[in-house]
Amino acid sequence: MNTTLYTVTIPVFIKSLENLSGFIDKAVLHAEAPAEGASAINLPELMQARLAPDQFPFVKQVQLASDTAKAFAARLNGEEPVAMADTETTMEELKKRIDATIAVLKEVKPETVDGKEDAQVTIKWFPGKFITGFGYATEYVLPNFFFHVTTAYAILRHNGIQLGKADFLGAISLQDLA
Amino acid sequence: MNTTLYTVTIPVFIKSLENLSGFIDKAVLHAEAPAEGASAINLPELMQARLAPDQFPFVKQVQLASDTAKAFAARLNGEEPVAMADTETTMEELKKRIDATIAVLKEVKPETVDGKEDAQVTIKWFPGKFITGFGYATEYVLPNFFFHVTTAYAILRHNGIQLGKADFLGAISLQDLA
Repeated sequence: MNTTLYTVTIPVFIKSLENLSGFIDKAVLHAEAPAEGASAINLPELMQARLAPDQFPFVKQVQLASDTAKAFAARLNGEEPVAMADTETTMEELKKRIDATIAVLKEVKPETVDGKEDAQVTIKWFPGKFITGFGYATEYVLPNFFFHVTTAYAILRHNGIQLGKADFLGAISLQDLA
Repeated sequence: MNTTLYTVTIPVFIKSLENLSGFIDKAVLHAEAPAEGASAINLPELMQARLAPDQFPFVKQVQLASDTAKAFAARLNGEEPVAMADTETTMEELKKRIDATIAVLKEVKPETVDGKEDAQVTIKWFPGKFITGFGYATEYVLPNFFFHVTTAYAILRHNGIQLGKADFLGAISLQDLA
């Protein structure tokens, strides 16, 4: 695999969003059938759970991971990201949001990302400013994306959902040594 | 800036570790002079704080961020990472650990990372297996690094340290639009 602006972003986001959807599966499973000794989980409350009073809740962490991922290729090309309404009220809807985001990412053609290192990316909350495509990817999109996926994971862990690093990383592409 | 295996990893880790050191500065400041209405912070307790009973505490999250970052170039080249003893008991020592990690990263020459996409990277807990250098970077090192920095941040946030996204991302390389 060559290292390009596309290969270090879009496939990475797709895999991590699939993992994020798996976190929700485990939360739903826990709510439906708590393990012996585990506390009961109320899913609507879990969607609104947060780690600090002024932090975004779980539902918003997932929406922001989605937003960060789907904005990337669009912003590199001076286009508006695909809009999603942030109206999810159930874990099932949140999984659909993730699926829809993955579908957007799968439509991104590598040639619309690669070579955009020097593109001038404008972000509405920095008026009169731009960041290069490379800076946008490495200083904003990658850290911010993982920030929200990890915070979503941390909120679930804090609320007793049994998740581990293997859930966060997903399957690793191991091969047999010769 | 060109997108290479080096440019999407080592400088990204350095910046994020600098930000992580800044989180600790805010925790120390909070402990020394809590804002009006803020709860008192005990730094030794904060180093051992975690979000779930079976999660690593703050100190270990920082050590693992360090380990993940400093192992990257070494493993790509079949070398043992620079060893650090995991004996930090104060926030000051933890900041020195971060500084030492940054120093290791600053010594990494781009040519020892770039072009290593197809290197066979072996990891001790996957005996008989390897992962390519590219897979190691994108499936393991980048997600795992940000996982531990974000979890460290989340533990501090949960314990009342006033941190925000700007602390996590650090300064963004904005330029003036023409």
